[in-house]
Amino acid sequence: MNARKLFYLGPQGTFTHQAAVNAAELLQSSVPEGFDLIACDGVPQIMQAAQNGEGWGVIAWENNVEGYVVPNLDALIDARDLVGFARIGVNVEFDAYTMPGAGLEDAHVAAAHPHGLAQCRRFIAEHRLDPAPASSNAAACRDLKPGEIALGPRICGDLYDIERVGSAVQDYQGARTEFLVLARREEVAALLERPKSQADVDYESVLTLIPLVTGPGVLADLLDVFRDAGLNMTSFISRPIKGHDGTYSFIATFDAAPWEQRFHDALVEIAEHGDWAKTLAVYPRRERPSPPVTSWMLPQGGVRLDDRHLPEDWQNDGTVRRELMWRSNVSQSWDWA
Amino acid sequence: MNARKLFYLGPQGTFTHQAAVNAAELLQSSVPEGFDLIACDGVPQIMQAAQNGEGWGVIAWENNVEGYVVPNLDALIDARDLVGFARIGVNVEFDAYTMPGAGLEDAHVAAAHPHGLAQCRRFIAEHRLDPAPASSNAAACRDLKPGEIALGPRICGDLYDIERVGSAVQDYQGARTEFLVLARREEVAALLERPKSQADVDYESVLTLIPLVTGPGVLADLLDVFRDAGLNMTSFISRPIKGHDGTYSFIATFDAAPWEQRFHDALVEIAEHGDWAKTLAVYPRRERPSPPVTSWMLPQGGVRLDDRHLPEDWQNDGTVRRELMWRSNVSQSWDWA
Repeated sequence: MNARKLFYLGPQGTFTHQAAVNAAELLQSSVPEGFDLIACDGVPQIMQAAQNGEGWGVIAWENNVEGYVVPNLDALIDARDLVGFARIGVNVEFDAYTMPGAGLEDAHVAAAHPHGLAQCRRFIAEHRLDPAPASSNAAACRDLKPGEIALGPRICGDLYDIERVGSAVQDYQGARTEFLVLARREEVAALLERPKSQADVDYESVLTLIPLVTGPGVLADLLDVFRDAGLNMTSFISRPIKGHDGTYSFIATFDAAPWEQRFHDALVEIAEHGDWAKTLAVYPRRERPSPPVTSWMLPQGGVRLDDRHLPEDWQNDGTVRRELMWRSNVSQSWDWA
Repeated sequence: MNARKLFYLGPQGTFTHQAAVNAAELLQSSVPEGFDLIACDGVPQIMQAAQNGEGWGVIAWENNVEGYVVPNLDALIDARDLVGFARIGVNVEFDAYTMPGAGLEDAHVAAAHPHGLAQCRRFIAEHRLDPAPASSNAAACRDLKPGEIALGPRICGDLYDIERVGSAVQDYQGARTEFLVLARREEVAALLERPKSQADVDYESVLTLIPLVTGPGVLADLLDVFRDAGLNMTSFISRPIKGHDGTYSFIATFDAAPWEQRFHDALVEIAEHGDWAKTLAVYPRRERPSPPVTSWMLPQGGVRLDDRHLPEDWQNDGTVRRELMWRSNVSQSWDWA
């Protein structure tokens, strides 16, 4: 039996490679023939290979600091026949490596992609290293020279003959990138029909919607449908269609599967209204924190009225006017509408 | 009179530097004392300097290919007292430079930030150049060596003693980054009070909203308020508050100023409902394309019903079920709700 190909963004040793390794582990029970991980030069090549049915693709989807990986999102929206069916999180952690036996003290140069260098500034300063930009963190690890420290993902330690001299040396702890595993729709449909997929699994779904009647309120009308269906939405953004300014698509993530009755009925209503809809991904629901609202750390500034102490004339309060950027005397004396 | 300081992300010769130059030109009539452009090491330093009242800041806001610059968005949401008051677009175009008199033919190496190298792959391949990663495109131009071509923004040609041997050599034409100019709120309020600002100017506004009652429908309820006010929204995203998973803020851009009566009234309703609100930016309205919906290029795939040809049993159509990822026989036989 040939192994299932899993395409990821190379070179070997990228965070996407780490995601592909994790995906292979997660999905091994569904794929008895095992996986063959293949590095690609770019995301278009990954999408094309998956679209051709040569295997499955792994693409970066969202980072908790940087937000959506928008070019990948746009590519999946426009893909002819691909859908995400697994979501994989990878912590963005950099380890420090030297040549075997070289030791941290002898190094005077730090090599990594400029982003990697920027994310490990404190470590670089502490060890008085000169930053040396590389085309990728993986390339920095692969091409490591005497006197150099390379900064790269954990997986690089397994791939190259190098020695780990520091773990998680990045400045910011807690960054995480999430990846989607993509396959052709009929393959995913077949996977979902297997008995164990129908067992006690909750799903999340990512949907793209394009309302074809525009103007004020079009988004509110659309979301009213999901509200009335009682669906919980966990992420929402607008995007120009294929990057064209002035055109609008909406990408929403729901805590439900599109075949659940209430979700199904909402989609029927949207389609019969004449709007465009497409399911981009359906994957098992992640454990996500759900902190109580009372513990949310609100940003600095802003306006929040406390109705126990609401003054009569709060609209003229200086702080309120400053935070909302209400100009003085304008709304009284001008008719802007 | 001391020149007004304008802080941007350095080194000299970045796209943000170009944006700062354009901003100084745009705003010169409001600032007779002129501008002093100052490069900073990072966006936190820019925000801090502007917050301290040392001058104004220029930060990248949104790119039409990559989407929002999310770390900057998060920083502005959480800024104690800063607001955007001008929006500046810069085309993402790379020119090719050599040492003076060196000529394109003698070069065998292309130097740029890895992103710059990735964006000029065709040019690099055509001229059979070896890519050499640099910490920034500006640094590649500044440190240009014989036999090298540097790829960088147009502004680098003016800054360094180098020769332009190619214009707009990037693979993808049409990428654009937009920047915001930030100042303290009271300064912006003063600028807006000037008579010419009250003349025939239309504004756009960026708002952050945090509903403090959560659950299904919270976003729909919020947007109903703006719909009922007749406000046109041109961009909308959700973000975790300060990056904390499971907490929600919404960032919306409207074709209106917050002091217009209908917008003012909508904000009153939201504030009196107990939700948190803050105006992030108010700037003169941009000319934006508004293509008719009939010309929109819909993505591949997806479902759009044409009511002239709507079959009775469209919900069982194979294409519809595939595009929406409706599993067969599930909604009939299972109760998922």
